[in-house]
Amino acid sequence: MFVTSLDKVEKSTPPMPGARGVTKQVPISAGEGTPNFCFRVFTIEPGGNTPFHSHPFEHLNYVISGKGLLMAENSQYAIQSGDFALVLPGEKHQYRNPSGNCEAMVIICAVPNDYE
Amino acid sequence: MFVTSLDKVEKSTPPMPGARGVTKQVPISAGEGTPNFCFRVFTIEPGGNTPFHSHPFEHLNYVISGKGLLMAENSQYAIQSGDFALVLPGEKHQYRNPSGNCEAMVIICAVPNDYE
Repeated sequence: MFVTSLDKVEKSTPPMPGARGVTKQVPISAGEGTPNFCFRVFTIEPGGNTPFHSHPFEHLNYVISGKGLLMAENSQYAIQSGDFALVLPGEKHQYRNPSGNCEAMVIICAVPNDYE
Repeated sequence: MFVTSLDKVEKSTPPMPGARGVTKQVPISAGEGTPNFCFRVFTIEPGGNTPFHSHPFEHLNYVISGKGLLMAENSQYAIQSGDFALVLPGEKHQYRNPSGNCEAMVIICAVPNDYE
């Protein structure tokens, strides 16, 4: 059993080409013994975004705080604190925090261990 | 891609022997196409608890709001809004919201699809 909070978890800048204003934390990883999937947290500053990309694994998201956009190939979803999102394997996607916002958007991004 | 929030997700009383004051929602399930694992949400009212039990799968938790206790076999963890918890397969555990609290404890409880 293991309990933590974001203030105890190291923050890094993920080496993702095309990302801007994004930091990453991994509160629950294979290192803690989780056998199948893990919880990462991305903080996206106003004006920031993750890459517009796809990959062969899914994202399960929960928006902890802030608001922004989840961009898809031909559509976009406004997301905000309290929302859940699912991005399926192979779906092109991007998380954006528009520059007009005044708060970081903080999201849980759960993925299978093999992809963390 | 799929976006939702708890106010759009049906609430049920889970048929868990030993549970008191607990309701369940499943914002992201296999029904939405998640290939490996899903997000359930449990709301535990003050004075409520999940069963003290174990099972052959893990829980990955995030405390959305409220506070309470995560009980283990020989220890307990105070948990509150913003905390993350990992319960490993086979670990005996219980989530409790003590009756002195004035707010429900709402937690994400992510598990492999096979166990939802």
